Amino acid sequence: MFRIGIDLGGTNIAVGIVNEKYEIVHEGSTPTRAERDVEEIVADMSDFCKKLVSEAGLSLADIEAVGMAIPGTVNTASGVVEYANNVHFFNYPMVERFGKLFGNKNIYIGNDANVAAVGEMVAGSGKGAKSLVLITLGTGVGGGVVIDGRLLTGSFFGGAELGHTVIEYNGRPCTCGRKGCFEAYSSATALINMTREKIESGVETIMNDFVKRDGKISGRTAFAAMKQGDKAAAEVVDTYLSYLAAGVANMINIFQPEVFCIGGGISGEGDYLIKPLREKISDQIYNYKNGIKTKIAVAKLGNKAGIIGAAAVCE
Amino acid sequence: MFRIGIDLGGTNIAVGIVNEKYEIVHEGSTPTRAERDVEEIVADMSDFCKKLVSEAGLSLADIEAVGMAIPGTVNTASGVVEYANNVHFFNYPMVERFGKLFGNKNIYIGNDANVAAVGEMVAGSGKGAKSLVLITLGTGVGGGVVIDGRLLTGSFFGGAELGHTVIEYNGRPCTCGRKGCFEAYSSATALINMTREKIESGVETIMNDFVKRDGKISGRTAFAAMKQGDKAAAEVVDTYLSYLAAGVANMINIFQPEVFCIGGGISGEGDYLIKPLREKISDQIYNYKNGIKTKIAVAKLGNKAGIIGAAAVCE
Repeated sequence: MFRIGIDLGGTNIAVGIVNEKYEIVHEGSTPTRAERDVEEIVADMSDFCKKLVSEAGLSLADIEAVGMAIPGTVNTASGVVEYANNVHFFNYPMVERFGKLFGNKNIYIGNDANVAAVGEMVAGSGKGAKSLVLITLGTGVGGGVVIDGRLLTGSFFGGAELGHTVIEYNGRPCTCGRKGCFEAYSSATALINMTREKIESGVETIMNDFVKRDGKISGRTAFAAMKQGDKAAAEVVDTYLSYLAAGVANMINIFQPEVFCIGGGISGEGDYLIKPLREKISDQIYNYKNGIKTKIAVAKLGNKAGIIGAAAVCE
Repeated sequence: MFRIGIDLGGTNIAVGIVNEKYEIVHEGSTPTRAERDVEEIVADMSDFCKKLVSEAGLSLADIEAVGMAIPGTVNTASGVVEYANNVHFFNYPMVERFGKLFGNKNIYIGNDANVAAVGEMVAGSGKGAKSLVLITLGTGVGGGVVIDGRLLTGSFFGGAELGHTVIEYNGRPCTCGRKGCFEAYSSATALINMTREKIESGVETIMNDFVKRDGKISGRTAFAAMKQGDKAAAEVVDTYLSYLAAGVANMINIFQPEVFCIGGGISGEGDYLIKPLREKISDQIYNYKNGIKTKIAVAKLGNKAGIIGAAAVCE
């Protein structure tokens, strides 16, 4: 039997057919066009899934369930998407509506970062572990937490907002309205802001050349210039990693998971991210003199974590 | 049947006999004298429990189990107290040793703040709830977390260190070695430091009179002077509560529990603590415009939370 995993994003809907080993056997992507009516989007999702099933040489009878990763507040008990601003779903009974369109299969929904954490746990950097914390360093800082094999959703399905914890009292403004959030220092957006501030300070730096070449400042600008020996870029990266370390150490002191994994765009830096991060948190973990037991790693599944995790939450 | 709850502290060992309704039917306290050999302390604990059982007109046959709240890192799976600095227990097989001394009863152990959270859940401000976060504002900031009826211990029994999360990057030094921890701003010790700094600034304040009368600055000094209209004291309390709000909002954004409760010495301020705290976090909870669902309350059991919680973890 197979499951379908759907990763519903603001730009694209990524869909995969997943086997019992959590391998994607066939996949595809279609534009979300989030400005459309939600019923139209959902009908499109169903049609697109049916098309992929057919392309894979399967029939609906081969699909036991469908899971969805949704960017927002998702009531996993009622099957309702309560609040997903990027895709304009508000109090939408997704499980009921999609089920009707898609052969009355069992449908499961989850918050995208939560679902990605499950994906990493069953098939990624947390394989074999019972507890895992995932943060994603992208436009924002997403969080997913699995404790003893169970997702932390919060009592009212709005928990695990790890990015919205203050690490710098009265610090940089965050999109959530607070000041000084982890997200405001550790997202790719924050790194871009730090890079821009350094460049605008007028210091001598080859980051200027990178920006000219690329036409913009990105989350890669400072890392790329640092790798070529640029001092100003190394300072930006060091500042960024120091704040990231503060937030990561906070989460380890709270959850002490077996695996702490980092996904999102910035995680593409691999060892340039993970090695100095490990060093920086080495004396910030509670009772660190007795050894740090949590394994810190880059998320392995990349942008497949949503699809695989969505298939994995069908249980 | 009855259970015994033991709250092992650095100064005193508090013991209660608890009935099936989580009521303490008989209790007593004996000095820990933590400088003694641990075997002597444990033998004393056993003798003291037997004495209380006898005083209550019961026999050992009436006691189904014994639970202990221990200030440190406790391996609930192996029954070993791994690290409890205040009472000098290091890798001590408490369940095995105490069991032998105490009629081979079933013995359960837990970290003191974790156990207190369970106590508040079964018989205190979280009664009837399935998830609860407790912080204790005393010498330090302790944390206990119950999610869906299960204690968060961390994968290696050192989690839920809520006090050791940075809320002010590079801020006040904390006893754990980090800078800017929640504990360094929200413990009674932190309030005393803030009070001292205000007094030493030379500002006009009746806090000076309170200090002369009491012979010292305490966690009550600023609150007491504020209640009499003292402006400088009100400023100290407001600063303290603003930091506390940042830490509390962080924990609600992470766990979104049904109940967030506050214990420890400072919680004695009751509504002078809770009302302004609720106000200060009102726009700091993620997605607050949809309403804040977590109930914020003072811990109800006071210093009985350890005994009752210890009896409750016997399961």
